[in-house]
Amino acid sequence: MSSCWGSQIKLSIFGESHGTAIGGVIDGLPPGVAVDFDAIAFQMKRRAPGQNRWSTQRHEDDSWEVLSGLFEGRTTGTPLAFLIRNKDQKSKAYANLNIVPRPGHADYTAQAHYHGFQDYRGGGHFSGRLTAPLVFAGAIARQILENKGIHVGAHIRSIGPVDDERFDPIKVTADQFEAIAQKNFPVITDESGEQMKEIIEAARMDRDSAGGIIEAAVIGTPSGVGAPIFDALESSIASMLFAVPAVKGVSFGDGFDLAAMRGSQANDAYDKMDDDGRLVTLSNHNGGILGGITNGMPIVLNVVIKPTASISKPQQSVNMQNGEKTELIVKGRHDPCIVPRAVPVIEAAIAFSLLDAYYLYQGLEHV
Amino acid sequence: MSSCWGSQIKLSIFGESHGTAIGGVIDGLPPGVAVDFDAIAFQMKRRAPGQNRWSTQRHEDDSWEVLSGLFEGRTTGTPLAFLIRNKDQKSKAYANLNIVPRPGHADYTAQAHYHGFQDYRGGGHFSGRLTAPLVFAGAIARQILENKGIHVGAHIRSIGPVDDERFDPIKVTADQFEAIAQKNFPVITDESGEQMKEIIEAARMDRDSAGGIIEAAVIGTPSGVGAPIFDALESSIASMLFAVPAVKGVSFGDGFDLAAMRGSQANDAYDKMDDDGRLVTLSNHNGGILGGITNGMPIVLNVVIKPTASISKPQQSVNMQNGEKTELIVKGRHDPCIVPRAVPVIEAAIAFSLLDAYYLYQGLEHV
Amino acid sequence: MSSCWGSQIKLSIFGESHGTAIGGVIDGLPPGVAVDFDAIAFQMKRRAPGQNRWSTQRHEDDSWEVLSGLFEGRTTGTPLAFLIRNKDQKSKAYANLNIVPRPGHADYTAQAHYHGFQDYRGGGHFSGRLTAPLVFAGAIARQILENKGIHVGAHIRSIGPVDDERFDPIKVTADQFEAIAQKNFPVITDESGEQMKEIIEAARMDRDSAGGIIEAAVIGTPSGVGAPIFDALESSIASMLFAVPAVKGVSFGDGFDLAAMRGSQANDAYDKMDDDGRLVTLSNHNGGILGGITNGMPIVLNVVIKPTASISKPQQSVNMQNGEKTELIVKGRHDPCIVPRAVPVIEAAIAFSLLDAYYLYQGLEHV
Amino acid sequence: MSSCWGSQIKLSIFGESHGTAIGGVIDGLPPGVAVDFDAIAFQMKRRAPGQNRWSTQRHEDDSWEVLSGLFEGRTTGTPLAFLIRNKDQKSKAYANLNIVPRPGHADYTAQAHYHGFQDYRGGGHFSGRLTAPLVFAGAIARQILENKGIHVGAHIRSIGPVDDERFDPIKVTADQFEAIAQKNFPVITDESGEQMKEIIEAARMDRDSAGGIIEAAVIGTPSGVGAPIFDALESSIASMLFAVPAVKGVSFGDGFDLAAMRGSQANDAYDKMDDDGRLVTLSNHNGGILGGITNGMPIVLNVVIKPTASISKPQQSVNMQNGEKTELIVKGRHDPCIVPRAVPVIEAAIAFSLLDAYYLYQGLEHV
Repeated sequence: MSSCWGSQIKLSIFGESHGTAIGGVIDGLPPGVAVDFDAIAFQMKRRAPGQNRWSTQRHEDDSWEVLSGLFEGRTTGTPLAFLIRNKDQKSKAYANLNIVPRPGHADYTAQAHYHGFQDYRGGGHFSGRLTAPLVFAGAIARQILENKGIHVGAHIRSIGPVDDERFDPIKVTADQFEAIAQKNFPVITDESGEQMKEIIEAARMDRDSAGGIIEAAVIGTPSGVGAPIFDALESSIASMLFAVPAVKGVSFGDGFDLAAMRGSQANDAYDKMDDDGRLVTLSNHNGGILGGITNGMPIVLNVVIKPTASISKPQQSVNMQNGEKTELIVKGRHDPCIVPRAVPVIEAAIAFSLLDAYYLYQGLEHV
Repeated sequence: MSSCWGSQIKLSIFGESHGTAIGGVIDGLPPGVAVDFDAIAFQMKRRAPGQNRWSTQRHEDDSWEVLSGLFEGRTTGTPLAFLIRNKDQKSKAYANLNIVPRPGHADYTAQAHYHGFQDYRGGGHFSGRLTAPLVFAGAIARQILENKGIHVGAHIRSIGPVDDERFDPIKVTADQFEAIAQKNFPVITDESGEQMKEIIEAARMDRDSAGGIIEAAVIGTPSGVGAPIFDALESSIASMLFAVPAVKGVSFGDGFDLAAMRGSQANDAYDKMDDDGRLVTLSNHNGGILGGITNGMPIVLNVVIKPTASISKPQQSVNMQNGEKTELIVKGRHDPCIVPRAVPVIEAAIAFSLLDAYYLYQGLEHV
Repeated sequence: MSSCWGSQIKLSIFGESHGTAIGGVIDGLPPGVAVDFDAIAFQMKRRAPGQNRWSTQRHEDDSWEVLSGLFEGRTTGTPLAFLIRNKDQKSKAYANLNIVPRPGHADYTAQAHYHGFQDYRGGGHFSGRLTAPLVFAGAIARQILENKGIHVGAHIRSIGPVDDERFDPIKVTADQFEAIAQKNFPVITDESGEQMKEIIEAARMDRDSAGGIIEAAVIGTPSGVGAPIFDALESSIASMLFAVPAVKGVSFGDGFDLAAMRGSQANDAYDKMDDDGRLVTLSNHNGGILGGITNGMPIVLNVVIKPTASISKPQQSVNMQNGEKTELIVKGRHDPCIVPRAVPVIEAAIAFSLLDAYYLYQGLEHV
Repeated sequence: MSSCWGSQIKLSIFGESHGTAIGGVIDGLPPGVAVDFDAIAFQMKRRAPGQNRWSTQRHEDDSWEVLSGLFEGRTTGTPLAFLIRNKDQKSKAYANLNIVPRPGHADYTAQAHYHGFQDYRGGGHFSGRLTAPLVFAGAIARQILENKGIHVGAHIRSIGPVDDERFDPIKVTADQFEAIAQKNFPVITDESGEQMKEIIEAARMDRDSAGGIIEAAVIGTPSGVGAPIFDALESSIASMLFAVPAVKGVSFGDGFDLAAMRGSQANDAYDKMDDDGRLVTLSNHNGGILGGITNGMPIVLNVVIKPTASISKPQQSVNMQNGEKTELIVKGRHDPCIVPRAVPVIEAAIAFSLLDAYYLYQGLEHV
């Protein structure tokens, strides 16, 4: 099974790339939230393809329809279901994915799991298109978080060998998030962005693709959100992030760099108690989470996105019906680099999982 | 909440470092499994402290008692509960952790989450000691997996700047796992191990600590295990791994290195169909998982363990009662490097989460 | 939260009576099931209103649209989402349900739970219309069960003081289920049915309503389905049945009559072992379930449906805005007796919950 | 699987009647609750056997040990694990339950489900002894509820043909609950109690057993607790109640009597708004729950307990090994009527499930 995530708020996602529709159901939203549809449209557009050279030319208008859970512009508290119809499918381009699987894609593993009954067209349920419902749900989650002063942002940290500047893990601001989100190519330093585009363009010219790293941050979270052991905030966020196709690694704070540090470097010394009684640290190598629970410092995390599996360069594959080796040239439209469009998806995944943890924290009674 | 993990088999973990006992409940085990207690004892001993210079001198004999779910040496299929009594606590050493929190540890975040009612002694429920029940549960999961020809292994990939050899992501074997598990210091190349020990010893001499990376692998998994989106195998495994204290990053296959690769490099070309009708790839950059589902190649993953937060070097902290800055010297016994003892913990986490996914796959009916 | 039920197969239900659409998502269906749409239409029609005097004159064509999870007429194994658009709403009739609540209905409790943000029109998410998605999901579950030789049936056991014949708890057959399902008024003995209709008609003439009891049975279940304690089959089935509006009691086997029996009467003596190695009992006072697990005899259960809360007789209520007592005359169209239309709903609830337990049983590995 | 129940607070139960220990884990308790151990002991004693003629002579001192989750007399908020060791087992009396199953008991269905690997001694995991952990957990839940002014009570409504007085569904009080709980034989009218004891004694003399009905009520619940559809409060409470061995029916309010009522009788007219802004009804036929959500009136429900399956009268059974018919005389100690001891168990089940729903309600954010 695959469709349901969450404890205090739940998200179900359904659909196949070339089926009738994709969509989702969000359950557990608080009643009375005035939903800002423009804000949803803004996030959906950030993810939408077809906007420039480095994304697929498939046109998805991604116009959605809310089926339930909204009344007079506000959430009712009952399940909010929504759908996005599929329109611009070109199934022929994907006609034989159930016979000759694309390397790096889920064609073969889906065949193995579903015994050949999966809708293989365009990757079916495994298509990156299924991240649209996640962005939709995340857009609502962000509105609720923002009302609490909690903001989520992300940028492209690297494409191939080109690095962007990093977020300051102490001083990163909501304004910075907003400025990046407004950009067509979401980086901190536009010069780095230009170099990244060159990397992507070079890959595209070679009928190849490029990967990258997205750095994300959350500010405004109170201390105390999360839980020990299996409900560690890192566990929740990571389980949601690895649901996003192409994500192959997730790390918090200084992540894999912590391996080479000593405790005296990695430990974030406490500096003072702020006016809200919250302890402030001098550094933030732990990314705002200790023991699975927020300490109130910015949450900082990194996600690696592998290069798009669909490339039109000839590749070696095997015919699943007769076992014969064959050369495969993937047709259809696809992004030479999915990373720019993945930025709002990563933000959405973080926002939804954080809101779930936030509600657990908020509901916790104490004497 | 924190105690319960799993879908087809569930694991609950309870206990505090200096409370009466720690333990767990495993539900959903198949009836009739002949449990090999020696194999459990072997895994428990790999994790146990006090065995050498680089681990805490606290003596835990970690002798366990099974309370239920076993009858005549076999699982009954009903919940298997077990406990490990706490014996060698020295609570005084930790007396004021609810007043002056240790940097890098969960003392402050636990205080924020539980409003000061947590058992703070020795880190309480957040102590690394809580990984003992996980190793116990994982040891049973491994036995079941091994009966299916599935083997889990891991080694220290790096400590500080020193690297061990890597697993061959195609040819890694169960014998190799077994050879490493028998070692007191679990590395592939003992020379690297000796250098790592020097790094650890140097940290210890400086009253400091060291971190590292653990590389793990699983062989023998059929293709088809896992699920798309929220039940992606990476999601399950990662959510379990981030439950382990000190884990700050998890990646699959080539992980963060995929950011600098092109699709034509990262895609694992299909080479042939083997005798079981399974496709074999030429490379394994994706770590045996595509679209959240195994392709039958070895699962390969990496986990970063931050340097032990408890160091006896003086550190700056803040008194949570009065907000005053204070110097903290952490007393008590602690490992200068937790990585060697974390190896069997990581293996256990992987084994348990994989078995859960395996049962979902096995139970899947098809026409 | 309210929308999600199940362990091995999950059902989400969404929608409001006068909103855009109602529908559901079924996750965990096995891949490859050839869905019989005529069989779904048949069940949907049994529940549909407007077919005769004793049901509401609201016309619902209940035509549905499958959005995902089906490919070339078969289930894919991924989430199957479907919707039913709302068409014939007359919201004005329900205009002030958020001000003056109908006695016996959820208007007031919904207001209390959702703080006034619920979609109150026509009962909103609490409307009996929400049972349509359940019938849809149940219709698919029944097809899968029938392929295994498991059949679910039900009839009206009583309306007011009039009783129908009872199922023979040992010899009840699938043919009998089929014969009843074909009837416009689902009873065993049509004479009783005629008397029941008179009771209903008399209630209708008095602008009042009638309640009743539905007896249901399942045949063909193997022994071993269910689980002890919290996953007792009675727990699963009852939790699903109490989700159906107007259900106020559920009992298995001889139910409340067991209170007056002695153990020697209530115990079902074992008579023989059949050719499949299954024990057969002489009687079936326990309704085919012992210790939460099926024994292979027919599952027999009873469900009480309270009289329709919506009656057009004047009733006393209180204005929720100013606390003043007021006389309420419920407008709108409603059934004088919901019991006949509830029969396929009860069957659907049983089918879905039984299939969930069946998959748990089927997936159970043993040595 | 069987061991885990709950959404906001979770209860795991483990153990077998003749194994090492039984016990449970409660997760999600709020931190800081001062646990009243005397109150727990009082509830445990109400359930304990061996106190009089109508209960089994097996001596269980049921002394428990708390393993975790408590610190300085208060809950920490982390999982609270507890165990009760088994002491007075006489396994020989049950020696062949895996060969010749007792009619009315789970011996055969356990064999079918667990393929013969269950611990069959004394009913194993299916034993009524497993209700002790439920009473323990319920005793803590009641303390928390009582701090909120919510009280749970129950009495024996009938044994065989003898009825006790009923609770007044409007005016029932906490004092009444308390008075009944203090009684050795928990009825409202002691005269009825004496007649019931005669029924039980007569059954015992005949080496037979008697069943009965327990009526329970909850007062002080605010309006708004519960949820529509699958999380209906009736669904939660019923799923927990059917987990109790011997429960075969659960009904709310007037239950099965509603079948013979008209809507105008069954609907509870609203009478006034009280000082807390809560609507008060004139009658309470719906047992305080409408649409799955409390309306603030007393919750009233009935539970039928079948006659004890273990009787020493000779019964016909079948040998599961060779299929031969055989006469069975159940040895061992058992209650001629379990109903009196079941009263605190039913109360505990209601308290725990209600607290879970209460926390969901309390945590619900609204604008």
